[in-house]
Formats: sequence, structure tokens, C-alpha cells
Amino acid sequence: MAEAVRYQTPALDALESRFRRLSSLHGALGVLGWDRNVMMPSGGGEVRAEQSATLSVMAHEMLTAPEVSDLLAAAADEAASGDRAVNLAEMRRQHAHATAVPSDLVEALSRAASASEAKWRLARAKSDFALVRAELTEVVRLTRQEAAAKSEALGTSPYEALLDQYEPGGSLPTINALFSVLEAELPPILEAVLDRQSRLPAPQAPEGPFPVAAQRALSRQVMEILGFDFDHGRLDETLHPFCGGVPDDVRVTTRFSEDGFVSGIMGVIHETGHALYERGLPPEWRNQPAGDARGMVLHESQSLLMEMQASRTPEFLSFLSGIARTAFGGDGAAWEPESLQRLYAHVERGFIRVEADEITYPLHVILRFRLEQALLSGDLQVADLPGAWNELHTKLLGVTPPDDVRGCLQDIHWYDGAIGYFPTYTMGAMAAAQLFQAALRGDPGILSAIGRGDFTGLLAWLRPNVHQRASLASTDEILIAATGAPLGTDSFLAHLKRRYLPE
Amino acid sequence: MAEAVRYQTPALDALESRFRRLSSLHGALGVLGWDRNVMMPSGGGEVRAEQSATLSVMAHEMLTAPEVSDLLAAAADEAASGDRAVNLAEMRRQHAHATAVPSDLVEALSRAASASEAKWRLARAKSDFALVRAELTEVVRLTRQEAAAKSEALGTSPYEALLDQYEPGGSLPTINALFSVLEAELPPILEAVLDRQSRLPAPQAPEGPFPVAAQRALSRQVMEILGFDFDHGRLDETLHPFCGGVPDDVRVTTRFSEDGFVSGIMGVIHETGHALYERGLPPEWRNQPAGDARGMVLHESQSLLMEMQASRTPEFLSFLSGIARTAFGGDGAAWEPESLQRLYAHVERGFIRVEADEITYPLHVILRFRLEQALLSGDLQVADLPGAWNELHTKLLGVTPPDDVRGCLQDIHWYDGAIGYFPTYTMGAMAAAQLFQAALRGDPGILSAIGRGDFTGLLAWLRPNVHQRASLASTDEILIAATGAPLGTDSFLAHLKRRYLPE
Repeated sequence: MAEAVRYQTPALDALESRFRRLSSLHGALGVLGWDRNVMMPSGGGEVRAEQSATLSVMAHEMLTAPEVSDLLAAAADEAASGDRAVNLAEMRRQHAHATAVPSDLVEALSRAASASEAKWRLARAKSDFALVRAELTEVVRLTRQEAAAKSEALGTSPYEALLDQYEPGGSLPTINALFSVLEAELPPILEAVLDRQSRLPAPQAPEGPFPVAAQRALSRQVMEILGFDFDHGRLDETLHPFCGGVPDDVRVTTRFSEDGFVSGIMGVIHETGHALYERGLPPEWRNQPAGDARGMVLHESQSLLMEMQASRTPEFLSFLSGIARTAFGGDGAAWEPESLQRLYAHVERGFIRVEADEITYPLHVILRFRLEQALLSGDLQVADLPGAWNELHTKLLGVTPPDDVRGCLQDIHWYDGAIGYFPTYTMGAMAAAQLFQAALRGDPGILSAIGRGDFTGLLAWLRPNVHQRASLASTDEILIAATGAPLGTDSFLAHLKRRYLPE
Repeated sequence: MAEAVRYQTPALDALESRFRRLSSLHGALGVLGWDRNVMMPSGGGEVRAEQSATLSVMAHEMLTAPEVSDLLAAAADEAASGDRAVNLAEMRRQHAHATAVPSDLVEALSRAASASEAKWRLARAKSDFALVRAELTEVVRLTRQEAAAKSEALGTSPYEALLDQYEPGGSLPTINALFSVLEAELPPILEAVLDRQSRLPAPQAPEGPFPVAAQRALSRQVMEILGFDFDHGRLDETLHPFCGGVPDDVRVTTRFSEDGFVSGIMGVIHETGHALYERGLPPEWRNQPAGDARGMVLHESQSLLMEMQASRTPEFLSFLSGIARTAFGGDGAAWEPESLQRLYAHVERGFIRVEADEITYPLHVILRFRLEQALLSGDLQVADLPGAWNELHTKLLGVTPPDDVRGCLQDIHWYDGAIGYFPTYTMGAMAAAQLFQAALRGDPGILSAIGRGDFTGLLAWLRPNVHQRASLASTDEILIAATGAPLGTDSFLAHLKRRYLPE
């Protein structure tokens, strides 16, 4: 461990051994999951599900075994300090989550989420919310029980107890305050941007062909430029891109379409941001809870910092325009950096979160954040969800979804049992802006280097300021040390105005 | 399970649950191993080793936990019968292997084998046995202790206790009797074949180019012809070909060389034989010891039946000549079926086992079988191995290895701690001949169908006669039911004479 052991800590030693084993189990589960998504033939699904379930059950048993409670109690009396004490607190948090919920409720939730997710696919295909209403009602009912149990164990509100699974220590009053600012500030910005945009020529997308082999090569080139180390990771292709694996073997996936490279390459950059965070976690805390990524806010901040901040600067888009032209033999006005900038900065009042631009995205998130709280508290009945969704969507975004597919059926999260996740997307976007501006203050050469395809300065700043902090401090402690302030809206709003409403 | 439960069997029920979990763990270990060989970036080695070690330790703990002894004792009093009783016996055998050896010896052996394997790579590169002598001496010393412990637990001789790990129930007197026949019969056959061969024109290999993409497509085509189901398996490329995975997701690998397809395609057929066996194991016994492949003798019989028996018939080589010509645009005398036959039937007194033909291969195996027994008993000192090897090689094969690389350094087995494995190769070759001849007697249409690229008749015979028997009977019981006789030399010798010494 990072510090000299000055005291006898047999209980903590035993816990560290156990969590080391748990980390290996979770790493193995990651390999099983990656293989399932990327390599597994269709007929392997059933046996793979059993393998994964077995490992998950064993991990759960390892974390909730009676001796863990005893060890945690005994470790509290030992004189662990500094990072080891932080690690112990993180063990305690994971243990609280695992033991708070009775195992029959865990199983009921897992079954209900599976049934609901399956029905959701059907409902989405037919754009008919009624098909999944009963299943979602059951998921929400059980999730309320889960939230109540975890709330008691963690000493938080029920919503915060769910949020804590994704963003440890996340505070509802803080998010409410931040999102209220965005809710007030974004609509006038959106209005102004749309007005300005209407007076500019429509952006032209480069014309193909865009052979997949060339896109693959360009993606690998860009990943290497960003700092991805292919001795410690891979790029593969899947329907739903993700970043998985472990810090020493990070697995990024993407999807290529022959029709264009513009959104594909940004998808690769996004996942590479996640991957660089994982790869940069401190080696001396491998396999311990304190060595894990802090939470989804900082994780999303790292993907969005690469995708939305660094890679959409005029500097990088100019560089990208050059290497993309070389990769595809492209030529003409649509390939000019200014044209790419306009293309990547196009804004519209849309219905689909995952296709949304930087300005409207937070409004999509706020919509979900409000509704999931109301579902959890019981203020909103599941049966009333489509109407409530459309009403709030109209209020926040100024357009009304024409059907449920473009409304409350578009995201898998709730149907899969994930309530409390959505706010981390926008908190991540805010953190990304805040960190990127701090990085540029810390090393003013970063921006011009990016324009030359050189990300080493940016990565050199992110490593100590974010990646190596792992879970050794809270999200806000990390942000304060790195940027001088806790998570706020100022940097994000300033960024939007600078990029979308230049003088 | 396969039969109606007529008695209360709580202990056996508990054991079946535990072995089901164990099977999932082993399946997960298989995925980790496949990924390591096929997909993993070099920098992932260390963390992967830790993941695999964790799962292995957990599997060992699950099998050796004190309650397993109690359950096995209690299950003995329950009135399980038929297949469930066979399954229980198989559990007992696995438990005996796992518990026979004290854990400090297991660990010492694992460390010694790792050290020895590493030194072996060096010694082989320099063709200098002395470099690895000390490490092999330690492996042999510890393996003697292991064999003694397992011998006591299983009630067999020490050599049989090691053999039992690869071929359950394998009997030393039986192997000695079979191999004595081969040792007497093969040299005169070899002499006659070499004499006959010298009077024929030398075989010509088809000339390339053989693009890897075309070889890959041809391999997939041939695998499908043999009956491989790509919905339940994959073909990938590795330095050392293997067949891994689980029955519902079988992973075959191969290696392609631009220089030729002749040996590559037979390598694919060999691994496909293994894969078809795994895929054909009985679904109703999935995840139980009785549902596993019987042992290495039958496993090797299935790969060799496809590679050496079915696919080197004039019928199939004629078919292969056609599809290979199409795949590579080949033309000329070397592509004629008769030329391919001579190429695939070429025999020589060589030094390297893995390059050996059907006739000399058993002599290579008998050499190793004799020497590993002498090493284990102490009749042969490790220091004297190179001399003993060369002496026996000269006696059996008529030529003397010019150096250790072409002598006792060529195989990894002993250096990696695997003593008792070698005889299964030749027993597998004998079983392959015996089963193939029985299949042709059972369904005389098989041979002509193979000539049309139709293996369904052969597979339909192998499924009930071999694959579906799994570990529900012994190797000899399976062979007797399928062929009318226990493992013998007659079919194998008759096959060699028919193919290599036609009238």
C-alpha cells in the first residue's frame, strides 16, 4: 500500500485481501461481459448467463459474509490513517449497499428488471407504453423498497441512496441547485443560438464513401493521439459502444457506419476518454476500492472532456480535418475545418437524448431527473408517465414528442431498474468544462498542442489532477483541488456561450 | 437430471448444486484463458494471471471444503442409482484428486513448473539441456510426491494416479500390453512403407499463393461440412492452435501460413474433431462431472478420427482437392487427388513428434511413455535423460537425434509438470481407427457421403456412440458398446497396412 504500515492492522489486512479477491472476480466478470458483447456466438447466451450469475453470486457472498461485518467493526478500532482509512470507508460503503437489501428483494428486483427490459424492447418496437406499464410499475414498486432499505443503511434520502450507487456521496440539494440554474439559463441561450444558427448557411456533411477499414485505421490513429496504449487495451466493434475491462487492459468498442465518420469518430473519442481515466488510475491502489474510478460524474467528465471540450475546439477540428481528408481522400468545402465546426456545433430542439447537442442535452436530463424523483416518491404514477413526460418535455424544450418512442420509451435505464443515474450525465458535462478550463489555465500550451495532434500536455494535467486521485477523495474534493471550486455551472455556461454565441 | 428421482437424495442434491457452480467457474476460467490466448493485449498478462488464479483457488476451495467430504459420505448412504450414481462416483474421483495432495505441495509444484517451463524455453532456444536440468529435477522430485499421495488416495500405482488426471481409469498393464504390440509391429511396417515409398515419385505440394483470407474462408467451409455450428462456436487465430470453451460455445483456433494450406487445413479439421465432441455432450448432463468428455483418449480419438481417418480417405481428399482448387485458383498435377493423397501419406524417420506421420508417431510416444515411467520410479536420473532419450530413439526409430532440441527438449509436457499424458495420444489414434471402422460397418454409406462433402452420417453415428456417452461410462465400456471390443491394436494396424501398403 501507498504508506508505511506503522500500526498493527490485522482486520484491515484481512479486508484488503478479501477486496483484492473481489476485484479479481469483478475483473473476470468484465471479461465475460466484454466477450458476450463482442465475441460470443448467439448460442452461447444461456451458459454465459449462468457463468456470470455464478460469479456475481460469489462476489456478493464474499462481500456480505458475516465475518466482513466483524472485520469492519474490528478495523474501526485499528489505527489506520490516511489513504488506508479512506479505503476502509469505501469498503464500508460497498458493504452497506450489499447488505442493506434483503436477498429476496435483490432477486425480485433482478427478475422484475429482466422482465421489464424484455417488454420494453417490444413496447419500443411498437411505440406503445401500455405494453410495459405493468412491468415498469413492478420495477418502481420494488425500487422504492430498495431505496428505503439503502436510505436507512446509508443515512441519506431514498433518492440519494440510489444515486450513491453511481455517484458516491451525491447530494440531492446540490443537484437541485445546479439544475435550477441550468433550467433558467439554458432556454434563453438555446433561443439565441437557434436564432444565430438560422442566419448561417446550413452545415454540409462530408461525402463518402467511408470504408469501414479506413474508419478503423483513423480511429486507432486518433486513439493513439489521445494517449490510448494498445499494449494495454483494444478497440473492437459492437452495436452499442462501451468502455470495459480493467486499468491494465481497457476494452473500447465502437460502431462504424459506411454512411459517415463524423459521429463515429466522436464516439471513439468519447469512449477513449473513459479508457484514459481507467488506465490512469493509481497502480499502487489496484484491486482496492480506493483505487477505483470515483464515480460516474468524474467518469463522464473524462469522456466529455475529450469528446465535447478538447476535440471540438477549432484547434483539434482543424487537425482532424487534415487526417480525415487523408484517410478518406476527401476534398471540397465540407471538409474545411470551419465547416466541420459548424457541423459539430449544430443545435436543435429534438426528442432523443442520445442524439442531443450540448445545449439541449441537460434539458433532456433534467426532465428525467424530475420524473424519476416523482416516480420514486409516488407523486407520479407509472400510468401517468407518458403524459407527464410530454408535458415537461414541451415546457423544457418547446416541442412535444409525437409518440412514446420519441418520449418515455427511448431510454433503457428505468426499465432496467436504474433510477438515479441520469443526473450524472449533466454533472459530468459540467465537470468536463470546469476541468478543461482549469487545465488550460494550468498549462496554456495545451490548446495549441492539441491543434498539432499532441495531447500529452492535457493528459499530463489530467493524470495527477483527476485520474490518480481515484476514489482517494470525493468528487468535490478532487474538483476543488483541480479547479479551485466544487462542481458548478459557471464554466459550463461560459463554455456554451463562447462556442455557440461568439461575438 | 436424466432419470426420475425416486428416493430422497438431499446430500447428492447438494453436491449436484455445488458441481454446477464449479462447472460455471471452470467455464469462466475457459473464457479468461481463451481471451488471453486470442484477444488480450500484452500488457494485460499480470492482471489476467491474478484473475485466473483467484478463480482457480476459489474452485479448489469449493471442491475441497470440509462439507464436501461429509456430503460424499452421506450421499453414499442414499439410494442413488444409474446415471446419478455414476455422476457421484465421478465427483468422488475429482474430490480425491483435489484433496490427496497437501496444499503446500500443490503450491510448490505450481512454482516449480513455472520456473521449469521458463527455463525450458531458454534451454530449447540454446539447445542445451543442462540449462534446465536442475529445474526439471525439482519438478520430477515433487511430481513423485504428488504421484505417491494420489496413488494412496486412488488405490492405483503412482504412474496410474498421474495418468488418471488425463485418462480416468487408465491401466498401466493394459497400455504396456498394447504398446508392446505396436513396438513389435510398427518397425517392419515402417521399413516396408519406406521401401515402397522410395519407388514412387516424390509428392509435389501445390504452389501458392495461399492468401490468409482464402484459407480462413476454406477453413470455415470445411468446418461447416464437418458439422461445426457457428451459432455455438468460433474460429480464431493463435500461435498454438487449441480447442476451448464449453459445449454450447466451442472456441477453435488455428494458425495460417501464407506458404501453404496443406497442413493448416488438417489442423483445423483436427481441432474441429475435438469441438464436435464437446458440442455433442449430452445437454441433460450439462454442468455435472458425468456430462464432461470422458478423457483424453476419447477426446484425441475424435480429433484423429476426423483428421487422420475420415479426412485422409481418397474419398474426402478428392472432394478437398476440388474445393481447395476453387478457393485458391489452383491448377496442375499437384492439385490432383492422387497427389494430395501421396503428400498426406508421406512417411519418414524423423525427430519431432508433432511433425511425425501416423506410422512413426506411436514410436515417438512409446519413447516418452517408457522414459517418463523411469523418471517417476527413479530408475532414470534427470541428468541421464538426454543420453537415454537418444539411445531409445535410435532403437525405436533407427535415427539418432543430433541435438537436444530434436531430442528431449522438444516437448513442453514434462517441464510443465505433465507426466502421464503422452500415452493418450497413441491410445487416441488407436481408438480413432477402431471407431471409424465400426462406423463404416454400422453405416456403409458414410464413406461415399464423405466423398460428397457430407459428414452427417458419420456425425449421426458418433453422437450416440461416443459424444452422448460423456463420462457416463468408462472409455472401454464406450468402445465395447460402439465397436464390440475394448481398445486394441488390430484396427489401427489394419488401417496402416491398408493405407500405406495397398496391394
